[in-house]
Amino acid sequence: MGKYQAQGIRPMLESIVQFLERQGLEVSIERDTALNTDWKDHPALCAKEIGQQCDIAVVVGGDGTMLGIARELAPYQVPLVGINQGRLGFITDVRATDWADALRPIIQGDYEEERRAMIAGTVWRDEECIFEGMALNDVVVGRGATSSMIELRVDVGGVFVANMRADGLIVASPTGSTAYALSAGGPILHPAIGGLVLVPIASHTLSNRPIVLPDSQEVQITIVNGKDSSASFDMHSLASLMLGDQIRMKRSELQAVRFLHPRGWSYYATLRRKLRWYEGVV
Amino acid sequence: MGKYQAQGIRPMLESIVQFLERQGLEVSIERDTALNTDWKDHPALCAKEIGQQCDIAVVVGGDGTMLGIARELAPYQVPLVGINQGRLGFITDVRATDWADALRPIIQGDYEEERRAMIAGTVWRDEECIFEGMALNDVVVGRGATSSMIELRVDVGGVFVANMRADGLIVASPTGSTAYALSAGGPILHPAIGGLVLVPIASHTLSNRPIVLPDSQEVQITIVNGKDSSASFDMHSLASLMLGDQIRMKRSELQAVRFLHPRGWSYYATLRRKLRWYEGVV
Amino acid sequence: MGKYQAQGIRPMLESIVQFLERQGLEVSIERDTALNTDWKDHPALCAKEIGQQCDIAVVVGGDGTMLGIARELAPYQVPLVGINQGRLGFITDVRATDWADALRPIIQGDYEEERRAMIAGTVWRDEECIFEGMALNDVVVGRGATSSMIELRVDVGGVFVANMRADGLIVASPTGSTAYALSAGGPILHPAIGGLVLVPIASHTLSNRPIVLPDSQEVQITIVNGKDSSASFDMHSLASLMLGDQIRMKRSELQAVRFLHPRGWSYYATLRRKLRWYEGVV
Amino acid sequence: MGKYQAQGIRPMLESIVQFLERQGLEVSIERDTALNTDWKDHPALCAKEIGQQCDIAVVVGGDGTMLGIARELAPYQVPLVGINQGRLGFITDVRATDWADALRPIIQGDYEEERRAMIAGTVWRDEECIFEGMALNDVVVGRGATSSMIELRVDVGGVFVANMRADGLIVASPTGSTAYALSAGGPILHPAIGGLVLVPIASHTLSNRPIVLPDSQEVQITIVNGKDSSASFDMHSLASLMLGDQIRMKRSELQAVRFLHPRGWSYYATLRRKLRWYEGVV
Repeated sequence: MGKYQAQGIRPMLESIVQFLERQGLEVSIERDTALNTDWKDHPALCAKEIGQQCDIAVVVGGDGTMLGIARELAPYQVPLVGINQGRLGFITDVRATDWADALRPIIQGDYEEERRAMIAGTVWRDEECIFEGMALNDVVVGRGATSSMIELRVDVGGVFVANMRADGLIVASPTGSTAYALSAGGPILHPAIGGLVLVPIASHTLSNRPIVLPDSQEVQITIVNGKDSSASFDMHSLASLMLGDQIRMKRSELQAVRFLHPRGWSYYATLRRKLRWYEGVV
Repeated sequence: MGKYQAQGIRPMLESIVQFLERQGLEVSIERDTALNTDWKDHPALCAKEIGQQCDIAVVVGGDGTMLGIARELAPYQVPLVGINQGRLGFITDVRATDWADALRPIIQGDYEEERRAMIAGTVWRDEECIFEGMALNDVVVGRGATSSMIELRVDVGGVFVANMRADGLIVASPTGSTAYALSAGGPILHPAIGGLVLVPIASHTLSNRPIVLPDSQEVQITIVNGKDSSASFDMHSLASLMLGDQIRMKRSELQAVRFLHPRGWSYYATLRRKLRWYEGVV
Repeated sequence: MGKYQAQGIRPMLESIVQFLERQGLEVSIERDTALNTDWKDHPALCAKEIGQQCDIAVVVGGDGTMLGIARELAPYQVPLVGINQGRLGFITDVRATDWADALRPIIQGDYEEERRAMIAGTVWRDEECIFEGMALNDVVVGRGATSSMIELRVDVGGVFVANMRADGLIVASPTGSTAYALSAGGPILHPAIGGLVLVPIASHTLSNRPIVLPDSQEVQITIVNGKDSSASFDMHSLASLMLGDQIRMKRSELQAVRFLHPRGWSYYATLRRKLRWYEGVV
Repeated sequence: MGKYQAQGIRPMLESIVQFLERQGLEVSIERDTALNTDWKDHPALCAKEIGQQCDIAVVVGGDGTMLGIARELAPYQVPLVGINQGRLGFITDVRATDWADALRPIIQGDYEEERRAMIAGTVWRDEECIFEGMALNDVVVGRGATSSMIELRVDVGGVFVANMRADGLIVASPTGSTAYALSAGGPILHPAIGGLVLVPIASHTLSNRPIVLPDSQEVQITIVNGKDSSASFDMHSLASLMLGDQIRMKRSELQAVRFLHPRGWSYYATLRRKLRWYEGVV
């Protein structure tokens, strides 16, 4: 599977396909990828078919591409390997120059597997569910463009936590803790932490600090004040929320993402590289 | 048990003792408390004896007093109730005016119990353990007063995380996440999170953000650079650390603190009150 | 002048008017205030007329009301006194219960005067000025609701500073430094500082820290990337900015706001009160 | 002048000396530099003599070396050029490979000059001045190693600002705003800002945010609580402060540092390079 718009990845896809077939594997191409690269020699499958028929998904692209594909395959728990043509990402950690050496042991069963929790969310209006969605990174409840702020009531496990006035509120998984939540001042959550982090964006109350909550409990956010508010699941927006609308989230019990890494892979090495730790002043 | 220096608490202690005896309980007084209040009518027990003989410890004082007592009783897991004569604390949540109403149901078995993890730590020099300690709040590794910074190597579960140059590094439990770690920019960790948070103090590298780690893995901090460094367990300092010294920490498997709260107690209400959430600009 | 919507302020306005007349002053009422309170006994003037004819403007309301009126009167530099019926604000510092004692010396010429700089801004498209505005607090350039971020190029005094990817960028005056900019992580600027502070909102680059710039130089922000971006002058929004649009800002040389305070007024006391300094943990 | 300990800089010093002499200049060597490099061919002058006799000081070393020399020469206002053998610093901005091209126009009078304010400070005990010092970066008042915090009273221009409980308090000049103050969460101050920034270190009160104050007013810090506190002027420590001791600071009216830069030098380019702005996630 590849980056949807990128036609330039065909040569690399060809090499990978040949390599996988030489290893004795049967290969299919994701349908949109096949379309975009004008690929006709292999079965073109949609996400659901990949989920049901494939043993491993090899993704070529950056973190954004991986995020989209991981969301689609999460119901089927097909393991994913990410090959990155540009700068390595947080979740795509095989270099375009190294993929053969990385893939060989992985398809022989020698890899490190890592499970990433997903956030299952619903949006409720007048006791009716008007939206259902999943997020690997985060759910963001934000003010509309014409509104100066939003006021949100937060409950966790049925218990009142706080009313917050801010630009918005991010509920991030450990995977999402290094994305938007980090920009907004949140901590990094190791993927093995069974938690979600609530990070207010530009909170009016200076002591409204990020808070890490058990992901087994339902986080409920109610829109108390604010026009044109929106809820975004991994940046996919549900706009025009109304006062009283509720967004409910917890860790999905059915879906999770499985990443396969080459042996020796280190979560911390990824952090060091992406956050440029230990390089002078920054 | 009471605040050690405070002789003024004798009247309140007397009322509580009478109340407990009227409820049919047998009462002992903590030895130093007895000494300070010139108490002679009941057995005076040390922490170990309380741990072995008592079913519940009633503590009169602030968070600091409670912290000290909780540390002493942690090996015995005697449940604790905290009565606060001043402003309520994070872990002492019964008002001096309400104690009778709060204690009555608790001693009849009607309460909410909450367990707080403790950090078990050791300090190693040349492969020899030179110190062993426990912390309910945090372990802080800091630079000496004459040193401009400290450089620390962090490993988690035997895997290298980062070298950090900073004023120091806080390893806090969920309980400690609302203490010093919060001042240094860390997030709040709900007590049910099985994690420790690493918070650098005035890090030279701006992207060295707080990171929440699973508390089942050992965090190891090695002193790479810095004169007169120290390690503090709940503010009890072990000074004069040397280059190469290692501090190792993980959640204690043997010790934990048990707090008893009146029914209806809410962790979030404590946060709102202590952090003054939802009161205007702050 | 009063809060526009509030009809309930008529009794207080009446007392103030009587008081001012007893002091020998001639009184006019701001036109909308007169309309809303059904006031017919005094001349009803618009902002421009007040600016040209009045020696002092007495404002009843909160910081928001004061902000709006101060902007309107800034071209005329009429001095302002703010009487606040609710919790005192940053710029409305006379209590509703104290106004007579506060006003008496002020109208006799015994007061502390404070000048607050205003930001003069323009928006340019294809070398043409499409908007001109003033701000007492801040100019905010932000992403559209459907956009995940905005990329902005910042130049100061014709020199390139940085490209920033963020939710937005706040350019705040000292007065605005305690408003939205503070929520987004900016510092407090004493009103006597001749500077503007640039505060990125949720910056992708963690080292993009707030920067205080001399207000004599023009800050120029160019929209490099981002759909539906907007520029807001004191929350008054100019939406639908396009790529390449430029927002240019510097301290206004013609307009400034003059606040009159009772003798003994202290900027720092206002900070302490509004930010609840020195009250426990917060 | 060179880095004091580094004997390895002799070859570079020789080239620079020859170059300067070819330009018709008379050259002296700083005394300790001469000692360390075993230099005997030119007059060896102390800082005072350099200050009185030289027209320009060429410094070879990093920001730390420059900081020390700039402090010594500040009373004489000799202009300084910094040649950096390693990674460029904030205030040493000529590369070791470029020095000839950079120096040639500068010694012919074609350069950009930049003045950096210095902080003049005194320490008072019982109305007696017990210490007098200057700082180019910052004055830091901090807790002792055995103390858990320090409580400080801050007054500005004789007016009470706040009592702060923290690890310490940094008073930084614009030059120091990119040093320790930045690590502690302070903003960047452009060198043309006539201000000092107060940055609390790990403040107990979360709303105690950095505040930028006019540098024409005296900042006075009084030690209210805390054992073994210290005051550091550019990291030179005055230890063992006592309760009631006062540190008073303002911009020096007599001393300032003059840096000469090659034409085209940009303060913002230095920020971009040192803070790695616009390089991905960080």
